[in-house]
Amino acid sequence: MLLKYFYDEKLAQASYLVGCQAAGEAIVIDPARDIEPYVQTAKANGVKIVGVTETHIHADFLSGARELAARLGAVLYLSDEGGPEWCYEYAAEYNHRLLKDGDTFQIGKLTFEVLHTPGHTPEHIALLLTDGGSPANEPIGIFTGDFVFVGDVGRPDLLEKAANVSGSAEELARQMFRSLARFKQLPDYLQVWPGHGAGSACGKAIGAVQSSTVGYEKRTNWALQHEDEQTFVQSLLAGQPEPPTYFAMMKHLNKVGPHLVQQIAPVVQEAASIHTVEAWTRQGVVVDTRPASQFAQKHLPGVLNLPHDKSFSTWAGWLLDYERPIYLLADPQSVPAVLKDLRSIGLDQVAAVMDLAVYDLPGESQYTSYAEITPSQAREQVQAGDLFVLDVRYQKEWKAGAIPGARHVMLGYLPQRMQELPRDRPILVQCKSGRRSAIAVSLLRANGFSRVQNLDGGFDEWVRQGFPVKREPEAAPGR
Amino acid sequence: MLLKYFYDEKLAQASYLVGCQAAGEAIVIDPARDIEPYVQTAKANGVKIVGVTETHIHADFLSGARELAARLGAVLYLSDEGGPEWCYEYAAEYNHRLLKDGDTFQIGKLTFEVLHTPGHTPEHIALLLTDGGSPANEPIGIFTGDFVFVGDVGRPDLLEKAANVSGSAEELARQMFRSLARFKQLPDYLQVWPGHGAGSACGKAIGAVQSSTVGYEKRTNWALQHEDEQTFVQSLLAGQPEPPTYFAMMKHLNKVGPHLVQQIAPVVQEAASIHTVEAWTRQGVVVDTRPASQFAQKHLPGVLNLPHDKSFSTWAGWLLDYERPIYLLADPQSVPAVLKDLRSIGLDQVAAVMDLAVYDLPGESQYTSYAEITPSQAREQVQAGDLFVLDVRYQKEWKAGAIPGARHVMLGYLPQRMQELPRDRPILVQCKSGRRSAIAVSLLRANGFSRVQNLDGGFDEWVRQGFPVKREPEAAPGR
Repeated sequence: MLLKYFYDEKLAQASYLVGCQAAGEAIVIDPARDIEPYVQTAKANGVKIVGVTETHIHADFLSGARELAARLGAVLYLSDEGGPEWCYEYAAEYNHRLLKDGDTFQIGKLTFEVLHTPGHTPEHIALLLTDGGSPANEPIGIFTGDFVFVGDVGRPDLLEKAANVSGSAEELARQMFRSLARFKQLPDYLQVWPGHGAGSACGKAIGAVQSSTVGYEKRTNWALQHEDEQTFVQSLLAGQPEPPTYFAMMKHLNKVGPHLVQQIAPVVQEAASIHTVEAWTRQGVVVDTRPASQFAQKHLPGVLNLPHDKSFSTWAGWLLDYERPIYLLADPQSVPAVLKDLRSIGLDQVAAVMDLAVYDLPGESQYTSYAEITPSQAREQVQAGDLFVLDVRYQKEWKAGAIPGARHVMLGYLPQRMQELPRDRPILVQCKSGRRSAIAVSLLRANGFSRVQNLDGGFDEWVRQGFPVKREPEAAPGR
Repeated sequence: MLLKYFYDEKLAQASYLVGCQAAGEAIVIDPARDIEPYVQTAKANGVKIVGVTETHIHADFLSGARELAARLGAVLYLSDEGGPEWCYEYAAEYNHRLLKDGDTFQIGKLTFEVLHTPGHTPEHIALLLTDGGSPANEPIGIFTGDFVFVGDVGRPDLLEKAANVSGSAEELARQMFRSLARFKQLPDYLQVWPGHGAGSACGKAIGAVQSSTVGYEKRTNWALQHEDEQTFVQSLLAGQPEPPTYFAMMKHLNKVGPHLVQQIAPVVQEAASIHTVEAWTRQGVVVDTRPASQFAQKHLPGVLNLPHDKSFSTWAGWLLDYERPIYLLADPQSVPAVLKDLRSIGLDQVAAVMDLAVYDLPGESQYTSYAEITPSQAREQVQAGDLFVLDVRYQKEWKAGAIPGARHVMLGYLPQRMQELPRDRPILVQCKSGRRSAIAVSLLRANGFSRVQNLDGGFDEWVRQGFPVKREPEAAPGR
């Protein structure tokens, strides 16, 4: 048996290639949209990808299941649980098999047994793997998807919050309780291979360890310590992070079938021109992927700064409109990776790219910059009320302590809630470290807020300087 | 807790970075010599590498433990078991702590408990990890090094075969039996994080799954099914692969302390010149890292072909002399990776590199080539005895079936056993697929054998064609 682990750091998303070397066959579990890593790994290990499966209809990334079926002819193994609303609408186009609780299927000597494990979603399944090539014919582990993570379980509130399925959060939380009762019956020694690692918005306390065991989760996972359904439901629903706005779109696309990558329109390379960038800012959104410190010093008006770092996909999903064209200002070497990351969440509408020579053209007056100030520099103005302090962190961080007088609008909600901010006062934006607030500064400036500064070092530095902190801040305006 | 897995495909070698995010501290377990991946991963995850440990004195790769101690000031946690012969001689130069069975040490909230697990080597330890940051204060898993692998255990015969410690194989096999008895007492749910994956010469049947659990190994690992010590010892000693010749050197260097990477003499870049290559072939060994098919068509006399593929490190270790300078003919883009791979097993003496323009110089008569023939083309001559067939596969493959009349000298032993081969007959070299035999052809030709051909497609293709196979071939000459 062959088991390979794939991890998208930007989405904290895990996928697996499981193969039987004897039969030369493999299956991919919960594939990301870019299938090249699976294709190459299969080739290097002498196996052919004959199947693809997913544990549920994903909300946080675009699935590569259809891509594998279309390009390689892999058989789709898909959940047939959860009712008619949660059927894969594209399945009929390909060779596929629909799975009910208790069903099994084979890849070479490997047997996968389906467990219906609703909770995160109604159709969610987990896959119990037995390696028939091993001496004992007993299961080796379970692919849990977004059912059981290392130290956490999948959140049940996404359908209600991100896809507007009213009342579903509590019902799914109750189903999760019953699914976990089944999980507890599994043997302790089984490996647990989850669909996400730390940082994913599909859970609230996921550990930074890639896999676990049934026994260890039974001993340590908070969700498996509950004996009472009602307190479990309350605990599970409490403290879940803000669901990204793009999740609804992912859910939809993964159900109807993501576009194949070859169908994406080619991206035009444009010559460096300030005039072109100006035109782009009227036609769509212009994204500059440089680090925030470079952007702050010199950029063009109307441009959004989304640094191509570990959080790129998350903030692209929160802040970019799926209906508007995207124009990129980026180092040519990084463009393939940037496009891959955008496409990993279905942002396929990149119309054109321009390289960074656009920042070396003559005419300094056409460029702009914004100021970053440290807590020491900002403190006096903040305390005198001369600055409107905007805190763009997550709700959970905000509740744990904030700068006195600050107002809270989480970065991801800023596009919808800009009207709550004053246009007649200078704004100081802050997050934890200064990274998210830099994105917010560029967003506000691109939307006509002219007096916006970034708090360099963020709330962490504010605290390190020993400046005052409000432990129970006032409620965010409008919420 | 943070757990990151690192895997060197060419050495089938696993290492781990384990960190406590709360304390911002991490330790590396069984580091490879190139420490950059650990340094970068630690940085990306906001932890500092404060410790380094290894499960035993490695025989198959050069350890990065000294490098981490010297460059980062990481504390060395090293085995103090196994007797005075197996002490780390360089430990005293650095901040270090010697470990006995039952000792514990802390990295942030993580506790490591030492288990002395002799068998693969006398000083071998395993490390039981408990994450004090998790609700239950119970162990999560065990770093087993070369004690328990997925589906196998560490071989006990390396000291005797590769380091000439007479009589040690059986004694270590008996110690392994007792160490495994302790392993069986561990809870089923514990994860098992081994030091090697499939393909390593440190075991004979290692699975292609990166980790396992105590319970699954108890159910499936052949070595844990034995109740009787004597039959276990016999089984363990039988069928172990040929120990690479370079293992003795690794063992020595890892005990006295590997050279620091910054001490390695810089590599000179030489202009393309056939004359220079000729001079190099007299001063040392010239290695061409191109794929075998390109080398076969055009190369320079006296040059050894070691394609830079998945098996590169293994055959470099078997075939290159640690005392002679190495000269590389390689694509400049691949040179950093080639140097890293050579250095991973302590082959630091690369004196110079030349790019592949050396194959585009005028003067066709100075180049040479060798023929590849298919089984269909070769069959008649083989059966008429016109060709001396040399089988360079492993003993185990040879025993399972061979071309009638072939002689067996495993590729790794060829430098010492060339005198057994006829200089007055044409030689046809074969392995399983044609890859290893291509290396052998270049080695023989560089040593003056002029009539040498490679069997394209190897024994596999011979079998596919339905040509005769001898199931119990005669013993190899001279053995």
